Amino acid sequence: MKRLSEEAIENTIAAIGPLDGEAMAKARARQDQLTKPRGSLGRLEELSVQMAGIRREAMPHFQHKVIVTMAGDHGVVAEGVSAYPQEVTAQMVYNFLQGGAGISVLAKHIGARVVVVDMGVAATLEPCPELVSKRVAPGTGNMAKGPAMSRQQALQAIRAGIEVVEEELRKGLDIVGTGDMGIGNTTPSSAICAVMTGEPVERVTGRGTGVDDPQLAHKKKVIEKSLTVNRPQARDPLDVLSKVGGFEIGGLAGVMLGAAVHRVPVVIDGFISGAAALIATGLCPQLRDYLIASHVSVEPGHQAILRHMGLRPLLDLDLRLGEGTGAALGISLAEASVKLLAEMATFAEAGVSDKEGGD
Amino acid sequence: MKRLSEEAIENTIAAIGPLDGEAMAKARARQDQLTKPRGSLGRLEELSVQMAGIRREAMPHFQHKVIVTMAGDHGVVAEGVSAYPQEVTAQMVYNFLQGGAGISVLAKHIGARVVVVDMGVAATLEPCPELVSKRVAPGTGNMAKGPAMSRQQALQAIRAGIEVVEEELRKGLDIVGTGDMGIGNTTPSSAICAVMTGEPVERVTGRGTGVDDPQLAHKKKVIEKSLTVNRPQARDPLDVLSKVGGFEIGGLAGVMLGAAVHRVPVVIDGFISGAAALIATGLCPQLRDYLIASHVSVEPGHQAILRHMGLRPLLDLDLRLGEGTGAALGISLAEASVKLLAEMATFAEAGVSDKEGGD
Repeated sequence: MKRLSEEAIENTIAAIGPLDGEAMAKARARQDQLTKPRGSLGRLEELSVQMAGIRREAMPHFQHKVIVTMAGDHGVVAEGVSAYPQEVTAQMVYNFLQGGAGISVLAKHIGARVVVVDMGVAATLEPCPELVSKRVAPGTGNMAKGPAMSRQQALQAIRAGIEVVEEELRKGLDIVGTGDMGIGNTTPSSAICAVMTGEPVERVTGRGTGVDDPQLAHKKKVIEKSLTVNRPQARDPLDVLSKVGGFEIGGLAGVMLGAAVHRVPVVIDGFISGAAALIATGLCPQLRDYLIASHVSVEPGHQAILRHMGLRPLLDLDLRLGEGTGAALGISLAEASVKLLAEMATFAEAGVSDKEGGD
Repeated sequence: MKRLSEEAIENTIAAIGPLDGEAMAKARARQDQLTKPRGSLGRLEELSVQMAGIRREAMPHFQHKVIVTMAGDHGVVAEGVSAYPQEVTAQMVYNFLQGGAGISVLAKHIGARVVVVDMGVAATLEPCPELVSKRVAPGTGNMAKGPAMSRQQALQAIRAGIEVVEEELRKGLDIVGTGDMGIGNTTPSSAICAVMTGEPVERVTGRGTGVDDPQLAHKKKVIEKSLTVNRPQARDPLDVLSKVGGFEIGGLAGVMLGAAVHRVPVVIDGFISGAAALIATGLCPQLRDYLIASHVSVEPGHQAILRHMGLRPLLDLDLRLGEGTGAALGISLAEASVKLLAEMATFAEAGVSDKEGGD
């Protein structure tokens, strides 16, 4: 493939503008005319106004809902940081394609389709029309011994995410959720979180799929070592992604940037999507306005990420599965918010008396 | 109508048994075989196990979802405790029937039907096949001057709620959400909350539909006066309901009891449904296991109610609309939980490697 320059993503970043203030004002004015006490739908009202601002229309409608679930493997699993063997990444990709995974069930529940993307699984996957291949390499390098990927590969991963969005836009895409699969990927996510938020590794590293106490202590040491070996620079998110990131993390950062350019709201999932959001908002602070935090994960670093970006999660259900499962539930709430905005009757339409003296 | 004796509800209460431990154990065992790290779906896993226990089957399925929204008026509005005029209760009943209210939109979003019940609106409502009439009286008495209703009327309201469930069961009912409409009904709800939880009126009284500071201070005085005038006895929930309750509150308590008898999970909405749950669990402590708290309302008393019953809300979205809007979102999560339980593939089915050594 041709060599990418950083311009490949700089154009995308430059094209991400502010939300549409006029559409938001119209949505807010309509909310105040709907048959309910003003503000009584709480965060669903705020959410509908944000959706209007992103979509640049006063009454947005979400016909095409998509979860992009990106898979990648991680060289750092050689250090023994995960409770599951690496082959599970590929096995779970097949499970997604066959509809047996958590995200398969939740996407169906909310009426969304799942786009499964191979960003760099450490196995040769059988070609399948439903599987989007954007393989950067068969797994990252072991970040405890050197960079996870080259800067060129980091660019390639982000660019791939942008392309996935552009391909889905052709089929119809009104709102997107992000999801991940990658055995070991809480390890790079904790590393990214520590670098980008400035929190100590100790506080942003959790049990992932379920390591025990000695394994958790070991995992923290591996992350510390990766940071010492690589010295990622927080002010250069591409540097952080390349040194201690992952292909699916870079891809998801690209999905976020690509969606925002095309005024598509992005519902982010848990900890790994959060790490991707740190990279993406590091590259483009304006992106933050296009993000909806679906839930707060059990992984301790996720709270630090949401605090750092100033995002308040919609749900707190002790989830820690990833795949986009939290994002699916968040999309359903975002959809509920715009349906309320568009479909509820106004006081005038319904002949309901407003509050005495209005507000 | 014939005079009701307390036996009319005592038989219902006596028929509410414990959850089915065997079905719960089976559901838990299946959760541990599904293709995800054990416990990684957090509260959705717990919720699916509770649903199995209530439904007495290892893999329950929710085909028929119903929101019962009960409307009633309150004599205490004569004291000036609400920001909206009383005629809004009847106007909103028509809005429900025409599909223009918040609950209309959210019920459609989750695929549920709304059953609107007139428990005692202070207006003659035009007959309509979709409106269930269980009118106890055209509004309660002013509780600041005497009891809201007689003990006989309290029994009648609860009995009506049980009947509504029985009527819906004939059409199909697998899970029910509770909702309310009644201008002024945060006032009796705060009174019930203070009596049943032992919290001071000051701490469990909020702004309802949006009263200002002087009105809030006045509202608290009205509630204090109602408690002094009526002296409701916490150990006798029927006494509390009759002295400082409401017809829709009694009706919703009946819906909860009736649903539990027929092993139908009950997703409770916000503050008014919470007050009904205090009455219902006061009558039948076993009922608690059949309840799912959908959300925590902005009304300060709601937290006290949930704490008192030991229920953890699924959502915290700053809602304060009532009608069953939070319950609708909660039903969608409960449905998601049982779909995950039933539809996800097991490790064996999907050929996915389990954690090394299992758990």
